[in-house]
Amino acid sequence: MKPAVTYELLHECKQTGARRGIVHTPHGDIQTPVFMPVGTQATVKSVTPEELKEEVKAEIILANTYHLYLRPGHELVKQAGGLHSFMHWNRPILTDSGGFQVFSLGDLRKITEEGVEFKSYLDGSKHFLSPEKVMEIENALGADIIMAFDECAPFPSSYEYTKNSMERTTRWAKRCKDSTKRDDQALFGIIQGGFYKDLRQKSLEDLVQLDFPGYAIGGISVGEPKEEFLDILNYVGPKLPKDKPRYLMGVGTPDYLIEAAMAGIDMCDCVLPTRIARNGTAMTWNGKVVIRNATYEKDFEPLDNECDCYTCKNYTRAYIRHLIKCNEILGIRLLSIHNLRFLTMLMERVKIEIEMDNLKTFRDEFYKKYGYTKE
Amino acid sequence: MKPAVTYELLHECKQTGARRGIVHTPHGDIQTPVFMPVGTQATVKSVTPEELKEEVKAEIILANTYHLYLRPGHELVKQAGGLHSFMHWNRPILTDSGGFQVFSLGDLRKITEEGVEFKSYLDGSKHFLSPEKVMEIENALGADIIMAFDECAPFPSSYEYTKNSMERTTRWAKRCKDSTKRDDQALFGIIQGGFYKDLRQKSLEDLVQLDFPGYAIGGISVGEPKEEFLDILNYVGPKLPKDKPRYLMGVGTPDYLIEAAMAGIDMCDCVLPTRIARNGTAMTWNGKVVIRNATYEKDFEPLDNECDCYTCKNYTRAYIRHLIKCNEILGIRLLSIHNLRFLTMLMERVKIEIEMDNLKTFRDEFYKKYGYTKE
Repeated sequence: MKPAVTYELLHECKQTGARRGIVHTPHGDIQTPVFMPVGTQATVKSVTPEELKEEVKAEIILANTYHLYLRPGHELVKQAGGLHSFMHWNRPILTDSGGFQVFSLGDLRKITEEGVEFKSYLDGSKHFLSPEKVMEIENALGADIIMAFDECAPFPSSYEYTKNSMERTTRWAKRCKDSTKRDDQALFGIIQGGFYKDLRQKSLEDLVQLDFPGYAIGGISVGEPKEEFLDILNYVGPKLPKDKPRYLMGVGTPDYLIEAAMAGIDMCDCVLPTRIARNGTAMTWNGKVVIRNATYEKDFEPLDNECDCYTCKNYTRAYIRHLIKCNEILGIRLLSIHNLRFLTMLMERVKIEIEMDNLKTFRDEFYKKYGYTKE
Repeated sequence: MKPAVTYELLHECKQTGARRGIVHTPHGDIQTPVFMPVGTQATVKSVTPEELKEEVKAEIILANTYHLYLRPGHELVKQAGGLHSFMHWNRPILTDSGGFQVFSLGDLRKITEEGVEFKSYLDGSKHFLSPEKVMEIENALGADIIMAFDECAPFPSSYEYTKNSMERTTRWAKRCKDSTKRDDQALFGIIQGGFYKDLRQKSLEDLVQLDFPGYAIGGISVGEPKEEFLDILNYVGPKLPKDKPRYLMGVGTPDYLIEAAMAGIDMCDCVLPTRIARNGTAMTWNGKVVIRNATYEKDFEPLDNECDCYTCKNYTRAYIRHLIKCNEILGIRLLSIHNLRFLTMLMERVKIEIEMDNLKTFRDEFYKKYGYTKE
């Protein structure tokens, strides 16, 4: 049977390892490489689905299994007709597995081979997540792409810890595959192995044997220096199966997105654009704009002259600064729309540069203008 | 010369003192009676101008002179091309005078015949507002309708205090009239006099002699019992000049809006719909919905089945409850749009009932359904 989600390769960049393609899903196609906005609690913070479609031009969004399991509960979402219906979004959705959040709880969780016991941050109640339970939750939520329950080792972690955690992640991936019940959802495996290449290689080989319809790289972009991030990204990225979608988890700065594309990654996600919006920061083609700065007080230009978003078409930096200084929700909304659009626009540009076999040249020029140093 | 703002009477209700009309302004016509959303800091909290036009169907909004004077400053707004341009709203705007806010400061302000000295709540800096200064500010902001600088006596106040304050308000109204510099703005006088009918009568007579292009009732709906509110409203309302717009300040509950219309009022404003939205409360044709209540947990119906707003067309109570419980901005947005639309829809209905000479009957039926007791 054809899997729910498939990958179609359109072009490989001759200058880099980047690839231009389409991910086909039950809720529509995704042009890749793509940036996926994150809707942790079944809402991309501060924006509507219409804004995501019309202004941001988002093709797929994420939602968070761990948060939705705790609140409002996956059964309620199922009763509402699934996540698409519950949150009024009819394009593709990807749900993470909750692994990252649960393992981030530190002392509040206990790991066994069976799964993870943890206390809810909401009310202290005890919960147990196993691969089978996570599949039950993700099946109920009903996303197009669902992620296997993995253990994301913190940075730094010892070889031994990372090895155990990676091997358990593989065993759990098998249990996820065996227990997921919906063939209209694609279950992706997550490659772990921290910053040890032999462990990454082993994780990759074992997961590829399990033949998932897509693969993710987990456990990088977790606080390590950029060189170590790039080292693992460029080691694992090109080894991922060519006929499947490739997803790098938790990446959302412009430079990391470009590097990911260069390493052959198709999909990335991050809360960054909406999070920094709430702090009053905009990403522009000329670098970051911290809108509270006095320099923008009488700046009647748009945030970014090269941007086509609702915010840039209709508002000045002076007005957005005023809103943010007054803690007005509209200020957060305007910056969120812009930042999300900036990243989708960046990826539109990346797609063109791949098609033109010019991505490395573009990256170098972008870094100069945006203010990032070359690696 | 024809004033910037004029009133056109279309129909008088044969069942009540209500009137159906049009207020003509430099930025377009307003069908009255009208509810005016409040954009204190040059933004109606959480919503965009497009949402106000397309979803709420607002015809005029308010902005707050006091807040905008302190931040970002009227000179900056003027440099931005005035309030309409600054906040991206091309329909009519009304600015209050800041009187209500300044007099609410209590110990932080000092009143003399010349004006009011007060300390900024933002940084403790000293400021002085006089009628002339307020006109300078309102002229710079550039609203279509500007309010005279008045003293709003608190409830309760003694006869002597109220009398002095009312007489000062009249003298200040004259000074406002003499100092305003733009003939594309209409300066409205504000009738004060607290809960003393002879003082209200005197205030009215003196202000009518000054021949303003519109009149407001200030100093009611300030915490008094409903009977006292209605007593003054029904005393003053019908005496206001018939050929000018009549504005009741600070009223926004459904029952007060209907009572105001019945007393011949054309315009009302209040922060209520957006304020209660932020607390998770919706106004519906069947009364208030406190969305956090457990009863709405699995309620997959819209907030209000009779409502045509974006929220009610696309979202369930269960989803909005989830958003509000998660403190998600989208929840506040959805409730704000709905509450604002509910009040503009109520006033659309009130206009029809006036045209049908049926407003009193409608009021009585509305009270039964909505849950308000008849006065």
